[in-house]
Amino acid sequence: MKDKDFLALELSKVEDHLIKTLKTRSKMVEEALERFVKSGGKRLRPTLTIIGATFGDYKSEIIIPLATSIEIMHMATLIHDDIIDDAETRRGTKTIQATLGKNTAVYCGDFLFTRAFMLVADMAEVDMMKDMSKAIAFICDSEIDQNEQRYDQTVSVRKYLKRIGGKTAVLFSLSIAVGAHKAGCDRNLTKKLTNIGKNIGMAFQIVDDILDFTGNEKTVGKPLLSDAKQGIFTLPIIYSLNSPYKEKTIKAIDMIEEDGGESLLKCVIESGGLDRTKGLARKFIKKALDIRNTLPDGYGKEAITEIIEKQLERKF
Amino acid sequence: MKDKDFLALELSKVEDHLIKTLKTRSKMVEEALERFVKSGGKRLRPTLTIIGATFGDYKSEIIIPLATSIEIMHMATLIHDDIIDDAETRRGTKTIQATLGKNTAVYCGDFLFTRAFMLVADMAEVDMMKDMSKAIAFICDSEIDQNEQRYDQTVSVRKYLKRIGGKTAVLFSLSIAVGAHKAGCDRNLTKKLTNIGKNIGMAFQIVDDILDFTGNEKTVGKPLLSDAKQGIFTLPIIYSLNSPYKEKTIKAIDMIEEDGGESLLKCVIESGGLDRTKGLARKFIKKALDIRNTLPDGYGKEAITEIIEKQLERKF
Repeated sequence: MKDKDFLALELSKVEDHLIKTLKTRSKMVEEALERFVKSGGKRLRPTLTIIGATFGDYKSEIIIPLATSIEIMHMATLIHDDIIDDAETRRGTKTIQATLGKNTAVYCGDFLFTRAFMLVADMAEVDMMKDMSKAIAFICDSEIDQNEQRYDQTVSVRKYLKRIGGKTAVLFSLSIAVGAHKAGCDRNLTKKLTNIGKNIGMAFQIVDDILDFTGNEKTVGKPLLSDAKQGIFTLPIIYSLNSPYKEKTIKAIDMIEEDGGESLLKCVIESGGLDRTKGLARKFIKKALDIRNTLPDGYGKEAITEIIEKQLERKF
Repeated sequence: MKDKDFLALELSKVEDHLIKTLKTRSKMVEEALERFVKSGGKRLRPTLTIIGATFGDYKSEIIIPLATSIEIMHMATLIHDDIIDDAETRRGTKTIQATLGKNTAVYCGDFLFTRAFMLVADMAEVDMMKDMSKAIAFICDSEIDQNEQRYDQTVSVRKYLKRIGGKTAVLFSLSIAVGAHKAGCDRNLTKKLTNIGKNIGMAFQIVDDILDFTGNEKTVGKPLLSDAKQGIFTLPIIYSLNSPYKEKTIKAIDMIEEDGGESLLKCVIESGGLDRTKGLARKFIKKALDIRNTLPDGYGKEAITEIIEKQLERKF
């Protein structure tokens, strides 16, 4: 019978595996990557892989490397994101790019991608390889979309959802699907879990975008309104632009450098943009909980419920 | 019987496959990647894969996707290199980073990496996946080394050779090995071909580094002395620093911004650094030719001889 300690124990194995896998020739790079690993993060993706696998025949020695490879892949995308955003901090510590420069950061990201693939290739997981490749291609596509949509005041909710679907939700659904699949769950169960993963991912990114407005800079670990400052318009702004506050919002966007985003924050609150955004996040959470209801009772169902419900209370 | 047209035909199939594989959602990105593909390049790596495979049972439908995936991988590293070097031109045309900006270029590189892996995964080539992952990890390691060694006037010939071995030769040997292996060559033959590939790669990179000093800016397709200007000391400088011209070389390096590298060029010529570099390139070519002598007679042997000999006359 799996208890509360089970997940903590498995996640600690993922931590060990992360450190072990990131050994490399350059001491400087190794130290930077270790610092990055130890700065934490929520480990949501490996958590999903582990929980997904508990619905079948859970084998730690198989699941841990897979969960680790997904977290490494995620870390790679974060490092490249930080280059693009010229971000100074992530999870409250200095980014790789801020520490070692752009040059090394590009290669650190590439290096992590290959490490993730090597882990999976070592286990001869061809299907997972394909899925991982597709997921990264999808993430790249969506990041390119996001980049092309910068400063576009006509971006629709539909486009936003497509973008975060690719940017974030794809990896969430892959994470849980890999776990379920490897533990031998049947197709129907795997599909349900994958869908839950997708909905958690959508809610996660929407909450992330809310926190960019309302979070606490310290707990969030990066400066607030960083998306808006870069011309990346997320849901609160999109809703605000699609409301009678349109003109006010445009003006507030123009003033962002001047007033640090104060008017924009006021705008997304008064226009109801922020509330509508929260409403949509709740919808995705509800969808995830609805599918959860159809899962077989037991440890996995309880664990996934906790993960789903946590998303709405997230403060960082 | 394979004739001269054989290689041209197979390479044209690689071109088609490249264009087909790089289809993506964003028109802008697709066009930039197509432009990049069509700006050519020597296609040396797919050529090696094809020639390697002619030593066994050549099956076009298997070899072309593999050769394509290696070229795509190579293109990915070029795009990331250009970001790091802030390069404006490559192969005489504007780099992806100069066209679409750093942001999109990072993702374009990532996108190409995943496309390369997808091609290989689709063919369920687990071993090649592992080798490709290792090769990219090796390339990253070497690029990081190169970055850490910047402006270091004590860099040794040994370190330089290790660096270019990882940065360039690894992919050359992988290219030919993949072809030979997939065509069912025995271990001994595959090993010989792999070694030839490695030596061609070493010679190729050394000639590249010579061309950075003595090339014609137009045919080389990028500004000369770009390595030295970034503090990347290649063999001509390393030899010059290890000669009685040491002090002169150091002064010339300091003056590079002022005089555009004129003194440095003079220095590597007068110190004999450039000649010694050419000598080393010839040594690697000689090694490749020596192993070539032990190959079975036929089309493959003639084709690889031509490739080896071409390296020394290379003008771009």
